[in-house]
Amino acid sequence: MTSILSGIAASNGIAIAKAYRLEHPELNAEKKTVTDTEKEIARLETALKQSKTELQAIKKRTAEQMSDEQAAIFEAHLLVLNDPELIGPIKDKIQSDQVNAEFALDETASTFVTMFEAMDNAYMKERAADIRDVTTRVLSHLLGVTIPNPSLVTEEVVVIADDLTPSDTVQLNPEFVKGFVTDIGGRTSHSAILARTLEIPAVTGAKTALADIANGVMVIVDGLNGEVIIDPDAETITRYETKKADFAEQRAEWAQLVNEPSVTADGHHVELAANIGNPSDVTGVLDNGGEGIGLYRTEFLYMGRDSFPTEDEQTEAYASVLKQMDGKPTVVRTLDIGGDKELSYLEMPKELNPFLGVRAIRLAFEREDLFRTQLRALLRASVHGNLKIMFPMIATLDEFRKAKALFEEERANLTAEGIEVKADIEVGIMVEIPSTAVMADTFAKEVDFFSIGTNDLIQYTLAADRMNERVSYLYQPYNPAVLRLVRNVIDAAHKEGKWAGMCGEMAGDEIAAPVLLGLGLDEFSMSASSILKIRSLLKDLSKADMEQHTETILNLATADEVEAYVKKLLGQ
Amino acid sequence: MTSILSGIAASNGIAIAKAYRLEHPELNAEKKTVTDTEKEIARLETALKQSKTELQAIKKRTAEQMSDEQAAIFEAHLLVLNDPELIGPIKDKIQSDQVNAEFALDETASTFVTMFEAMDNAYMKERAADIRDVTTRVLSHLLGVTIPNPSLVTEEVVVIADDLTPSDTVQLNPEFVKGFVTDIGGRTSHSAILARTLEIPAVTGAKTALADIANGVMVIVDGLNGEVIIDPDAETITRYETKKADFAEQRAEWAQLVNEPSVTADGHHVELAANIGNPSDVTGVLDNGGEGIGLYRTEFLYMGRDSFPTEDEQTEAYASVLKQMDGKPTVVRTLDIGGDKELSYLEMPKELNPFLGVRAIRLAFEREDLFRTQLRALLRASVHGNLKIMFPMIATLDEFRKAKALFEEERANLTAEGIEVKADIEVGIMVEIPSTAVMADTFAKEVDFFSIGTNDLIQYTLAADRMNERVSYLYQPYNPAVLRLVRNVIDAAHKEGKWAGMCGEMAGDEIAAPVLLGLGLDEFSMSASSILKIRSLLKDLSKADMEQHTETILNLATADEVEAYVKKLLGQ
Repeated sequence: MTSILSGIAASNGIAIAKAYRLEHPELNAEKKTVTDTEKEIARLETALKQSKTELQAIKKRTAEQMSDEQAAIFEAHLLVLNDPELIGPIKDKIQSDQVNAEFALDETASTFVTMFEAMDNAYMKERAADIRDVTTRVLSHLLGVTIPNPSLVTEEVVVIADDLTPSDTVQLNPEFVKGFVTDIGGRTSHSAILARTLEIPAVTGAKTALADIANGVMVIVDGLNGEVIIDPDAETITRYETKKADFAEQRAEWAQLVNEPSVTADGHHVELAANIGNPSDVTGVLDNGGEGIGLYRTEFLYMGRDSFPTEDEQTEAYASVLKQMDGKPTVVRTLDIGGDKELSYLEMPKELNPFLGVRAIRLAFEREDLFRTQLRALLRASVHGNLKIMFPMIATLDEFRKAKALFEEERANLTAEGIEVKADIEVGIMVEIPSTAVMADTFAKEVDFFSIGTNDLIQYTLAADRMNERVSYLYQPYNPAVLRLVRNVIDAAHKEGKWAGMCGEMAGDEIAAPVLLGLGLDEFSMSASSILKIRSLLKDLSKADMEQHTETILNLATADEVEAYVKKLLGQ
Repeated sequence: MTSILSGIAASNGIAIAKAYRLEHPELNAEKKTVTDTEKEIARLETALKQSKTELQAIKKRTAEQMSDEQAAIFEAHLLVLNDPELIGPIKDKIQSDQVNAEFALDETASTFVTMFEAMDNAYMKERAADIRDVTTRVLSHLLGVTIPNPSLVTEEVVVIADDLTPSDTVQLNPEFVKGFVTDIGGRTSHSAILARTLEIPAVTGAKTALADIANGVMVIVDGLNGEVIIDPDAETITRYETKKADFAEQRAEWAQLVNEPSVTADGHHVELAANIGNPSDVTGVLDNGGEGIGLYRTEFLYMGRDSFPTEDEQTEAYASVLKQMDGKPTVVRTLDIGGDKELSYLEMPKELNPFLGVRAIRLAFEREDLFRTQLRALLRASVHGNLKIMFPMIATLDEFRKAKALFEEERANLTAEGIEVKADIEVGIMVEIPSTAVMADTFAKEVDFFSIGTNDLIQYTLAADRMNERVSYLYQPYNPAVLRLVRNVIDAAHKEGKWAGMCGEMAGDEIAAPVLLGLGLDEFSMSASSILKIRSLLKDLSKADMEQHTETILNLATADEVEAYVKKLLGQ
């Protein structure tokens, strides 16, 4: 019987395909006394061999269909599988304790995992995760239980999961994965951002999808309305196929706008830019008609490796982005590590509230060496394009002054070394902390530009962790308090002849964008896949009209009132 | 040789006494194989007996000098000491494994501690803490090492510690403890608040006090300037004795103001109120000339017990405070649990960022039963005095409306039950989340009053955990962003004919108070011990003068500039 789940519309579009449950079964490794220990060792050997064959297949497929980088995780797993330091003790345990292979494997692996995890070092913790993954695989072969190998999927599916971790998603082949449904997460969760990057429909926060949807059942993912239709009848499928075709048509219409400027009905021009994580993302930006990059998250350059990227490596990456952008504005954010983002090779003390702790610029001041290296790399790359630099998590003017002084020092150092540096690099800040939004007038006198980071600004303004499901009702982009802070930042910038952009998820939101237009936002930076949709939306809006509604909107009392008001304005 | 440490001036006054290091030595419980297991068991028995005698002495002394409540912790320790479930396995281990008593004790206790801690239940975790404390005591007797027993101190001392936990402080006898110096913590840490309640000088965040100060060395704690003078010469001691006498004289002068109103030099009246945690704190409020209670933190009523307080128990506590206050305004805050405050008998899921999670009113909505019980108790107590109720952690108007509706429902229920309830109870909110400060104008139309909670407002406005030492430089009460938000709240209240108070640490701060006077704050609520100091300060200030400086102060760019400006105004 058809049923419907409601969740969060995390990525646009409609998908219709069979459900593929990405779920890890419970594997029972209960202790059993055995007499024939040789037989147990033989069973272990067979399971190790099967796991090896399987991992090699997954690795090969991943390298072919995705990238060598993504395949590397399985290379790490193969190394664990061949590690005599791990396998030896398992065999010893079978013999000395006369126990079954499952128990010996699980016990021995657990000891290593516990040991590595206790080390309080992110690198060793990743090794612990590798061991856990491999143990699960070998155990599944010993028990004859199938664990999901999403990389081996060879038909079109909709993935149903509790949540997708980076290590899950690395295995997903975008050719076959037509949609995501996750029980937890919101619009800014890893799964949601990934779905938008891959341009596949997704619904997050569906709560009971895993409980309600069996493997192989037909499902419709409505990423436009945040709904999941389980086991639809023929009539429903037909209806959604029409909806899907309409959406494809709309996409095609949007595609017409690729080379058009972003101009409102009354002739006001704004800049529609994209947020990227890697130089390889630039193609997607240009394909979607991006007029610039509003946020290059450089921390990805530091991830998935064993040591800090060198000045030369960084220079190369930044130069690659600048060259590809060919003179279009490119805003690079300096390292934003900490909070929910860790580096495996950088030890960071545990904090009780990491989102209120040593993140981003705060970490840059603790590790000035890393910060200076990045500034030098940015300065060296500056000659290749239209570079703008911004500092994340600025809370006080003192912090901006300190960061700017380090920038000027490194500029002087490079000049003294005879290295060419561009003369007119704009230096700005992310506005993502309430104090900075409130004090925007004093900042505007010293910075070259603002970029409003709404993901964090909203969570601090409402004191609600954006990763915490239990307070997700307080993560309110349309809360008038957020809009008033945004206005304060834009007005302060304009008063000093500076520009103000936004690089949070809100900039690509169809309800927020008209309000932001009315407030006078100069640059909207979003997922590349949202650019054409917003360009199309703005084309039909008049800035002068929206300006007239601004005062009314900012005087509404709640987020719901704002949403209802804008929807009415848009005729929805 | 004399040396000086700088820290945070956490509690006013000067103390001169010998250092008492409150530090737990490392106890070595290394494994040793023994042949004479009977001897080990006898050693264990002796150590258990010594520990018992010691604990009974500590318990007796605590009950006499402090309270039965504080003595209860040692009763719990004695129970652990007599628990055959713990002692039996230790003896078994000595015999079966042929090991020394220290190792058997440590291993067995560790198993229990690990088991209890893994239960993810705060009550069992407290039991784990008890076992750990008792194990340490028994181990110290086995090893002949002295562990600190602060409750046995019988001469005047200054306590030097890394930090003071509630279980440390319960053992401190205020008769002999003349001052605190802690290496970590700020002005709002547990140690700091305790010191102000006990009215003893304290310096927190001294960083290297434990490293630099030996037991028995003479130290001077200058709680006025946040300095610790180690091993002072005779001339320095004389100088500080004068300073101490001056301060005592000033205190005596302040004491003259106990029955005076709080009036500025130009005749403006404000209300100076106190923050309390228990009905027994009211005496201190009245002794210090408090004109009201600006914050009664009801969560203390829920702590240190095994189950929720009943409606009757709560009614009694609230009525007791109201009767003692004899018609003076008494603002009661509904339950603020979560964040850094846990209840042993209330299971709460772990959160990654508890300060941005389910706290206070958010928890009240999840546990509406608890909230309704508290509201009923407050309504029933209302006939005994001048009760005002406020809700903590309000982030949106929807939340206030929801809480207010529950209040009205319970009022109607009680009336229907024929129970008398006061007619005109003011219902207000804490303003401690930036969104609410920004939206104060819309709130002011619906609430009866605001009370600005600066401790949290500052941490959210600057996105800096107030308990995290590494970002303590960002915990800036004088940051102009904080002052602007405060102004916004006060102005919004006055525009609607409502009043605005403040119940954060800032209200009792000598630099902040003049600024708050200029901003028009109506009620200043602080530690009872600060009231007379602030009354004396305000007596010499003119509100009209301060108003003239407000615009200039709010346009300064940094917290340091504000502090320097106000100090200059005050002639410091």
